[in-house]
Parts: sequence; C-alpha cells; structure tokens
Amino acid sequence: MAGKVFFSVSMSLDGFIAPGSLGELMGRQWMELQAWIFPTRFFRENLKLGGGGEEGQDNDIVRATYERTGASVMGKRMFDAGERMWPEEAPFHTPVFVVTHEKRDPWERPGGTTFHFVNDGIEAALDQARVAAGDRDVRIAGGGETILQYLNAGLIDECTIALSPVLFGSGVRLFDGVDASRVALEPIRSEPSPRATHLTYAVRRR
Amino acid sequence: MAGKVFFSVSMSLDGFIAPGSLGELMGRQWMELQAWIFPTRFFRENLKLGGGGEEGQDNDIVRATYERTGASVMGKRMFDAGERMWPEEAPFHTPVFVVTHEKRDPWERPGGTTFHFVNDGIEAALDQARVAAGDRDVRIAGGGETILQYLNAGLIDECTIALSPVLFGSGVRLFDGVDASRVALEPIRSEPSPRATHLTYAVRRR
Repeated sequence: MAGKVFFSVSMSLDGFIAPGSLGELMGRQWMELQAWIFPTRFFRENLKLGGGGEEGQDNDIVRATYERTGASVMGKRMFDAGERMWPEEAPFHTPVFVVTHEKRDPWERPGGTTFHFVNDGIEAALDQARVAAGDRDVRIAGGGETILQYLNAGLIDECTIALSPVLFGSGVRLFDGVDASRVALEPIRSEPSPRATHLTYAVRRR
Repeated sequence: MAGKVFFSVSMSLDGFIAPGSLGELMGRQWMELQAWIFPTRFFRENLKLGGGGEEGQDNDIVRATYERTGASVMGKRMFDAGERMWPEEAPFHTPVFVVTHEKRDPWERPGGTTFHFVNDGIEAALDQARVAAGDRDVRIAGGGETILQYLNAGLIDECTIALSPVLFGSGVRLFDGVDASRVALEPIRSEPSPRATHLTYAVRRR
C-alpha cells in the first residue's frame, strides 16, 4: 500500500509558523514556538545537539514523525536556509526532493540523506518522492509557501500541527492564501502534551 | 474570592472567529465553526431552539461556561446583532454590561438578563461586571474587537478556545492586533471532543 502525503509543523495559537523578521521579540517567539521539540532526546540526537534530552510524549511524537517518513519534499528557500544550518550529517537520512528552478546534481550527505533537485514542479517532485518512500509516507517538509501549494493542489492526505501556547501577532501564517472553498479537515486525533497540543487532521477535497 | 475574567470563543484552525462577509461559503464556514455547539442540549434549551439536543462532553463544556458566568461584558456591535437575534428571554440570565457611547436606561428582559449600557470605557464596564458577578466569573462575551481590547489591556485572566476543524481563509481574526510583546499564555488544559479541541490558557502579562 502506498504511503500518505503529510506535513507536520509547529504553529502559534494565532496561526504563525515563523517570525516575519529577526529581532529580540521574534527570537523569543521562535523559541516558544519550538519549546516542545527542542528539549526532546530524538530531536537533539538527530541534529547532533548533544546534551541528552527528554523522553516522553513529545519525544515519541518527534520520533514517530521521523520514522513514518520515507522521503521529504521541500521548497528552495527552506533548502537554502537548511544548507547553512544542518550538520554535515543532514537530519533526514532519506531522499529529499527540492522543488527549484536551479539545475544541480544530486547532493549526497553522510548518513543517508541525498538531496535531489527537481525542476518541473510540485507534482513531479511528489511523484519522485512517492517512489523513493515506498510504503512509508512522504513529508512535505516546508516552508509554508510550499506546504500551501501542495494543500491547495489537493495533494495532502494528512497534517499534524503542534499548536504552541504563544502569540506571534505577525510573521508567516501557515494558512495564508488557503483555498478554503476546497480544503476540508477531518479530525483524526488531538494529543495534549504539557508544552503543545498535537492536532492531526485528514485533509479532504470538497 | 473574586472571580476570574475570561473569554470563550470558537476559532477556526486558521484563527478566525467570524466570516468577513455573507455568502454561501461563509454560511457553510460559520456552521462548521459552530458545529460542536449547535447540537448540544444546553445550547438549544438556552436559546429556545427546541429539538432535544445531545448530552456529553461538548454539552458539559457549554453548561460549565454558562454556570461559571456571573456577569458578561460585550461590545456595542455584538449587542446590536444580538438584540435582533436573541429570543425575548435573552440567553444570559445575569447582568450584561454593554460598552457603548449610547446613553440608554437598563433593559430588563424576562428570565433574569438585564443589559446595562456603560459609557465610560472598558475598565468601568468590567468593574461593574465584577461587582455584579460576586464570586462567579466575568465573561467578556465579544465581539472580537472588544475581547482584544481587554486582552491588550491586561485584563483577561483566562481564555478557552474551541478550535474547530475548519479553514476560513478570510474573515475576522481573533488575535489580529494582539500585543504579542505583552501577552503570554500558559496552558491549563486541552480537551479533545469529537467536534473540536477545547484549549484553556491562563493569560499572563509579560
């Protein structure tokens, strides 16, 4: 059976997934947005951050998200930011398909991550990711604009949102520009942890 | 002990509490936003809608919100809309303080609701509501602009958001204009029901 196509992001209670600019307030907001994931053991080990980390519900959710993912798709902007920030052993350990106009040979990293640069659009990138993922799932990793393109194209089966107890007031909204006349949500589960509420929905076409 | 000041609203996953205009899509969105509350027995009885209604978790939450409320505060726009829509026996059964520039004598309705029109601002309206509520809580009933004024003024102790599985794409955002540098949230509880996730936060001043 083919896997699902999903995304999984942290969102502020007022709907933002990233600050709009840099600055002291924004730095604090970003830390609060990600406060549930930073301390988890799996996240810290996967990014080689060291320092042990916490077990428990949030850690289980990070691990499960990682383990279900057979391939990821991301936009060029996320790749560009990540290229500067990921450790040499990039944290995916699967094929990653980058939607971009840039022509570039596959970029193989230690630890099993290979970035493939796809020049013919979001559907082509997803098709390649599906094949690479086999019976595991394809994660649309980000950023927000790329997630929204897949959502509005009806290509997302499921999403998980870690709703964090923080207000941004401004920044990048996850659902800005969503085609609300076409996208329906069906609750699958809602898992409260002390630091976030993990909301999972099936995404349906109206 | 004095009661708390709280608000309780239904919000779409993308942060809206009301449609921006009328129309078929908006009517559907509104119904989906409120889909958790319309069928509940308490809501239907309180608005004299008839038809029995459902018991269970959502019903318990509606009832508990009603029972904790010793007085409500609302803006003029919400009052104007409600004046046309509430049954003769308005659904509050407590004093309600309307923040308005209009001078008007108290308006007593059958069933224990009396509307008081307060002309000297949100703090004065809240002071009067606190006295009227005694040891029960004061609900800032709405609309969104009024809730935001109280939130930014640091006058809210707690909020409950029924997060509904619907996307609006446009409309009235609950937190549009929130002073994110001053308002902090602390999770109290997160209660998933089949039709919504009920999120309760303590609101703190930074």
